[in-house]
Parts: sequence; C-alpha cells; structure tokens
Amino acid sequence: MTDSTGVSGQVAETVADEAAAARIAVIDLLGLLAFGELSAFERLATDARMAPTLVDKIALARMAAAEFAHFEAVQEHLLRMGVDSEKAMGPFVLPLTLFHNLTAPADWLESLVKVYVGDNIVADFYRETASVLEPDARELVLDVLADTGHAAFAVERVRAAIEAHPIVAGRLALWARRLLGEALTQAQRVAEDREALTGLLAGMGDLQALADMFNRIAQAHAARMDALGLSA
Amino acid sequence: MTDSTGVSGQVAETVADEAAAARIAVIDLLGLLAFGELSAFERLATDARMAPTLVDKIALARMAAAEFAHFEAVQEHLLRMGVDSEKAMGPFVLPLTLFHNLTAPADWLESLVKVYVGDNIVADFYRETASVLEPDARELVLDVLADTGHAAFAVERVRAAIEAHPIVAGRLALWARRLLGEALTQAQRVAEDREALTGLLAGMGDLQALADMFNRIAQAHAARMDALGLSA
Repeated sequence: MTDSTGVSGQVAETVADEAAAARIAVIDLLGLLAFGELSAFERLATDARMAPTLVDKIALARMAAAEFAHFEAVQEHLLRMGVDSEKAMGPFVLPLTLFHNLTAPADWLESLVKVYVGDNIVADFYRETASVLEPDARELVLDVLADTGHAAFAVERVRAAIEAHPIVAGRLALWARRLLGEALTQAQRVAEDREALTGLLAGMGDLQALADMFNRIAQAHAARMDALGLSA
Repeated sequence: MTDSTGVSGQVAETVADEAAAARIAVIDLLGLLAFGELSAFERLATDARMAPTLVDKIALARMAAAEFAHFEAVQEHLLRMGVDSEKAMGPFVLPLTLFHNLTAPADWLESLVKVYVGDNIVADFYRETASVLEPDARELVLDVLADTGHAAFAVERVRAAIEAHPIVAGRLALWARRLLGEALTQAQRVAEDREALTGLLAGMGDLQALADMFNRIAQAHAARMDALGLSA
C-alpha cells in the first residue's frame, strides 16, 4: 500500500493513521464513560429498592438522576464530535453489563460498597487517562467525575454499619475484593478488544505502562478500603 | 367537648376542623403524588434493563430521570408548606409498593403497557382531584402530569409490536386489565385508610361520588385500551 507513495507519503500516512487512531481512542473513552454512567444510573436506581428508609431511597435515586445527567452531557459531547453515541457505547455494553450482572449486590450495604468502590475506580481510571484528551473533552470528563457526594454518602453509612455490627466488615471486605477482581477482568477484556484505546493509554503499545496503571488503581483501592475499615 | 363553647364556638370549631381536614387531604394528595413519582422512577429505571435496544433503554432512563425531577418539585412544594415529605409519603409506601410488586412486568412490552396505563390512570385521578387544590398546588400537579411524551413512546412501540405479532394483543389486554384491577384494589385500600382524603374527594363522605369517579377513570382506561388495539 505505501510502496508507491515514497517516504514523505509514508510519514503523512503514519501521521494520519495516528490521528485516526487517537480519534477512535477518544471516542472509546467517551463511549465507555457514557455507557458507564448509563449503567451506573440503572444500578443505583435498582439498588434504591433495597434502601432501608425513604431518606436513603431518595438519596440513591438522586444519585441515579445525577448519573443520567452526566450520561446526557457525554452523549451531547459525542454528538458535537459527529459521533453516534449508541455506536460509541456499543463495544462496552457487554463488558459493563457482565460486570454489573456478576456483581449484583445482595443487600443495601453491598450496594453502598459497590457505589464507593466503583465510583472511585472509575474516577481513578479517568484521571489517569484525562491527559490524552483534548481540553474540552478533558474538562467534561473531570466535571462528570468531580461530583463526589455519592462516595461520602456511602462511606458514612458503611462506617456506621460496621460500628454497629463489626461482624459485617469481613463480608464487605470480601465483597470489595470481588468487585475489584471483576472490574479488572472486564477491563482486561476491553483492553484486548480495543487496540486503539489500549495503544493510546499505554503510549503506543507498551503494555507494561498499562499494567502499571492498573496496579496504581488497585493500590488506591486498597488504601480506600483500609480507610473504610475493610482490609483489602 | 363543645358543650361549654356555645353555638358560635361550635361553628368556629367546625370551620377549623374542616380547614385542618382539608390541609391533611391536600398533604395526602401531594404525598401520594410524590411517592407515586418516586416509585415510577424506580419502576422505569428497573424496566430499562429489559429494553431491547440502547435507544429504548436511554428513552426509558430519560423518562425515569424526568419522574425524579417531578418528585423533587412536589417534595419542594411540601417543604414550602412546612411539611416533611417523608411523613407525607408514609401512608402510601405500602399500597404503591404492593401495586408495583404485584405488577412487575415480565417483559419489555408489559413494561410499556404499564407505563401507558399507569401514567394515564394517575393523570385522570389528579385531573379529577385538582379542583380541590389551592391554585399553586393545582398548577404544580398539572405541570407534573402534563409531560405526556412517555405515553406516546409506549403507544408507538406497543402498536408496532401488535402489528408485527398480532398474537401478543390478547396477552397484553389481559395484562392491562390486571393492572387496572390491582390499581383499583390499592386505591380502595387508600380510600379506607385516609378518611380526610376520601372526605375531600367525595364531598365530605358521599362515597357514591367517589365510586363514580373511579368508574369514570375505568371507562377512560377502556377507551384507551380500544385505541391501542387491546380489548379492555
């Protein structure tokens, strides 16, 4: 293909290829975020059914509505980029749905731990990757993830539950470990399927950099679990 | 109690009693609406999991988020009235939760029929009762119920499904009849439990007027089912 174009043609083609790959990777990051917000909405709204009080139910429903507003913001951004948001989300429907189906909380406390663990892992991941985004996409991503009221709500209630019944700590620690494991399993699946995304994240093919990133996220998770009174 | 107050005292007390009963009834109407919106939010968000496509899932999630916004509007109104919204919703948690638990849709089409039937019955009920509300509460209620995009979405998809597979019409007609039956059963329960509300609605104790209202709502339901291609 490049034989007839000469050296300068090859360079131009490589630059164009890189630009195209970068665009695919950014669309992937936003598509993943959009479907992540949409499925977080579903998860929170469904978990609201387990809330022990009306106040808790309303709090979770409010978080769910906020996630949907975030989803809409990302969807609009994709639209402005000329991208169909359903197409951008497509590759992430299966891994995220699998993640949520494999980690359906059995009770209210498990759902709160999932909110806390999930939100933080997602925020860590996007903070790691935001540097590769254009300024306006970066601002959008940081805006969407800046809303940390959810985590505070979850932490407060989980801490109170552990104080009242210290025996739940062991079960919740196992639960948090399983959540991280399933999240990493699905992240692995995405990394294998989405070459452009993986390439962009790892600096064009250096898989060690990607592994390092996942390790940093796992370490931050462990530190948060310690702070919550759960040994990771 | 009234022996010592004389005739004018009795009149004043009756007027005060009536005003107190009217306030309780209005708080009941708004508490019922608030919890109705909150549980509609949960129902729609949960049903979004059954959506056959991402576009349908997003549409249902958007409706759910709108219901939550309505819930917040009613909650704020109750707050301005000096009423704790959780207390106002309290009496309606059991009947509405029972209704939703007894009518959990088995699939996407059943969930759409439920959206359509439920939204319309609720809108009919509040249009019948709006006349007893203060102007600002009346405006709020009519605003909250004016958003009819949901019904149009459900109708379009149910009609298309019946055209494609006429055999589903029988099952959905039975389903719609069951929804109405369960709704009336729970309405009956509320009417028995909430004397002030029933009194206000029926013009101070005329239960026939209340029965007439329920009949009008059932007739409107039947007409809608006809229009949808389902024999009620």
